[in-house]
Amino acid sequence: MKTVGVIGGGQLARMMIPAAINLGLEIRVFAETEGEPASRAVTQVGDYRSVSEVAAFAHHVDVVTFDHEHVPTAVLEEIQSGGVAVCPSPQALSLTHNKIVMRESLAELGVPQPRWSVAEEKESYRDALAIVGGFPCVAKKPVGGYDGKGVRVITSWDEIEDWLAEGPVLLEEKVPFLRELALLSARRAGGEWVPWLPVETRQVDGVCSEVIAPAPGLPPEVSQKAHELSKRIAEGVGIVGVLAVEVFQLSDGSLLVNELAMRPHNSGHVFTELSVTSQFEQHLRAVADVPLGSTAFTSPVGVMVNLFGGIDSRSREEAWSAVPEAKIHDYGKSPREGRKVGHIVVVGESLERALSQAEAARSAIIPSR
Amino acid sequence: MKTVGVIGGGQLARMMIPAAINLGLEIRVFAETEGEPASRAVTQVGDYRSVSEVAAFAHHVDVVTFDHEHVPTAVLEEIQSGGVAVCPSPQALSLTHNKIVMRESLAELGVPQPRWSVAEEKESYRDALAIVGGFPCVAKKPVGGYDGKGVRVITSWDEIEDWLAEGPVLLEEKVPFLRELALLSARRAGGEWVPWLPVETRQVDGVCSEVIAPAPGLPPEVSQKAHELSKRIAEGVGIVGVLAVEVFQLSDGSLLVNELAMRPHNSGHVFTELSVTSQFEQHLRAVADVPLGSTAFTSPVGVMVNLFGGIDSRSREEAWSAVPEAKIHDYGKSPREGRKVGHIVVVGESLERALSQAEAARSAIIPSR
Repeated sequence: MKTVGVIGGGQLARMMIPAAINLGLEIRVFAETEGEPASRAVTQVGDYRSVSEVAAFAHHVDVVTFDHEHVPTAVLEEIQSGGVAVCPSPQALSLTHNKIVMRESLAELGVPQPRWSVAEEKESYRDALAIVGGFPCVAKKPVGGYDGKGVRVITSWDEIEDWLAEGPVLLEEKVPFLRELALLSARRAGGEWVPWLPVETRQVDGVCSEVIAPAPGLPPEVSQKAHELSKRIAEGVGIVGVLAVEVFQLSDGSLLVNELAMRPHNSGHVFTELSVTSQFEQHLRAVADVPLGSTAFTSPVGVMVNLFGGIDSRSREEAWSAVPEAKIHDYGKSPREGRKVGHIVVVGESLERALSQAEAARSAIIPSR
Repeated sequence: MKTVGVIGGGQLARMMIPAAINLGLEIRVFAETEGEPASRAVTQVGDYRSVSEVAAFAHHVDVVTFDHEHVPTAVLEEIQSGGVAVCPSPQALSLTHNKIVMRESLAELGVPQPRWSVAEEKESYRDALAIVGGFPCVAKKPVGGYDGKGVRVITSWDEIEDWLAEGPVLLEEKVPFLRELALLSARRAGGEWVPWLPVETRQVDGVCSEVIAPAPGLPPEVSQKAHELSKRIAEGVGIVGVLAVEVFQLSDGSLLVNELAMRPHNSGHVFTELSVTSQFEQHLRAVADVPLGSTAFTSPVGVMVNLFGGIDSRSREEAWSAVPEAKIHDYGKSPREGRKVGHIVVVGESLERALSQAEAARSAIIPSR
C-alpha cells in the first residue's frame, strides 16, 4: 500500500495513526513543533510554508494529505509537480483558503447557500448589505477563521471596522435555520464516493459542542437531498479524501451550505465508534486509492461531545468509573482556556441515554466549561 | 497516566498501539528484531531472556506487560525487584510456562478441567493412562507449544516417543465436547474484574480459524457458570490484565478448562469492532490501573476469521471491494505457509450474514488455505 504523508501534527493526524496501523498502511507526519498530538508518527519537524522542507518530507511518501488547510497552494503545486500526489488537490484545497472563493465556487456548482456578498469598497456597502437582507447579518473574514473565530453577527458596520480596514469581508444572510447538520463523505480519484448518514451538530458560541448521529428525525427526502448536495460538491471540486459539508437545515427542509472542510472533521469523530469505517480510515483509503469501507452504523445512535480546556488524569479516571461506556479521546495537548483537547463518544440504543452518559462523562472531566 | 512497556513486538503489541493512542497513554515496545509488527512503538530491540537488556527497557516505563509468555520468570523477578511493576505477575505468568503447573494450579483452585495425568516414568505409564481413560487421549508437551504445536491426539505410546525421551508429558482425557468457548475478562490490581460475553472458537487442525461472538445459543446458566469460572481463575492467580480461558462445553452444559492465556488473545480480536472496549484497551487500562471500560456489545453479533500464509495488496483490495463491511487487519508480517498474518472482523445483526461476509473476504484474500 501507498505510504501516506500528513502535513500537520494535530489531533486529526493523530487519529489517522490507529487507522493506518489497522489498515497496515505506512503513515508519516510533518509537524510544526516537537510534542504535537501526532508525535508518534512524526518523521520531520518544520515549516509547512517552506517548499524545500515540505519537498524533503514528500520525497519519502507516495501521497501527501493534511491535518489542516493552511499549506500554501504554491507549496502544494511544487510538491505535485515533483511527482508526489497531493490529496485533496491544491486546486480543491484553495476553496478552503478563502471563504469568498468558496462561495463563488459553490455558486458555480449551483449549490444552495445563504445569500452572500462582499463588502469591499465603502460606496458599495449598501448594495452588499441589501443582497444579504440588511442587518443583522453574518460577517466573515475571508481568510484564517476557525471555530467561531473570524465570524461575527453584526448589526452595524462599526462592528467589523477592523476587518474592513484589512480588506474585503464576506457578508452572509443570517439564516433562520432549524438546526445545523454536517454531511460527511469520502471520494476516491476514480469517482467512488461513499457518504455517512447526516449528523446534527450543536454549537455553543460558534464552536461545535455536540454531535448527534444520525441527525434525529431527518425525513428521508431531506437525507437524500443532503447526499445529492455533498456528492455534487465532492465531484464538482474533484475532492480525494474526506469532505465535510456543514449545512443549515431550514423549516421547509431546504439545506444551505455554511462551510466546507476537505479532511476529517470534528463533526465526524463519532464515526470511529459508530460506523464500520471511521473517517480517518476512510480518508486514508481514499488518498491511498484503495476501496472505501462501509459507512453503515453498527449501533442505532452515537453522541460526540468535545472537551475544552484541559483533561487531568484524576478527573478522567472519575469519568471512566462513572461512565464505563464513555470513549474518552485525549489528544495529548497541554491545557489552555477554550482549547479543544479531546472528545467523548458514547454509542447505544437510546439517544437520551447516550447523550446523558456523554454529558455525565464530560461533567466529571470538566466541571464547567 | 502510566507509561506501559510491552515485551514482544508481535501483533498483540501492535494492536495495543491504537488503544494507547486513543487512551492518551504512552506505550513502548521491546522487540526481538527490527521490523516486527509493533515496530511503530519499538524503543529497544534485544533479547528478552537477558536481564540487563530487559532491565534497561524497564527503566523507562512504569509497568511492564507482554505480547507473549516466553520471558523467563527470573528476568521478570529481577525487573520487579528493581521497582517496576510487572503485569501479570511473574508468579501468575509461570502457570502459562508449563502446562503441568497450570493443571496443578487449576486443580488447587477447584476449577473443572479434563482428567489429566503426567507420563514420566515408564513403569507408571499404565496408571497415568488409566486416569485419562485410556487411548485415545490427548498428549501435550508441557513447555513451548502453541497453535496446535505440542499437542497430539494419541492412540499409542509410540506416537509421543520423541517427547517422552525429553521429559514428562501431560496426558489429558479426550473430552467429548460440543464446542470450544473462550472466556475473556480483565482484572485490575484492586480487584475490579470485567468479563466479555463468552465467544465460540472454531479450530481447524488445532488452530483457531473462526470466532463467533457471542457464543450462539449459550444458556444463561452456562454463561453465568462461565463468568464464575473465569473470575475464580482471575482471582485465584491474581491476574492483572486480560485473561483468556479456553474451555470445552459439554452436552450437559459443563465447562472444562483447556488452556489459559494471560494477555490479549486471538479469540478476543472480535471485540475491537464488537465491544465498547477492545481487549487491547482493556489490557492497557488494567495494567495502567485505571477504571476498566464497558464490555457491552455495540452490535448483536460479530465474527472473526484468521488469515494465514500471506496477504497481498491486490487480493486485499478485491476483498475490500467485495465486502466493504470487512475489517481486514494486516499484522505487517512477511508471508509464510501457515503463519497467522492477519484477521478479518465483520459485525452485524445476523450471524449467517456476518459469517458469510467474513468468509467471502477471506476467500478473496486467500483463495485456499
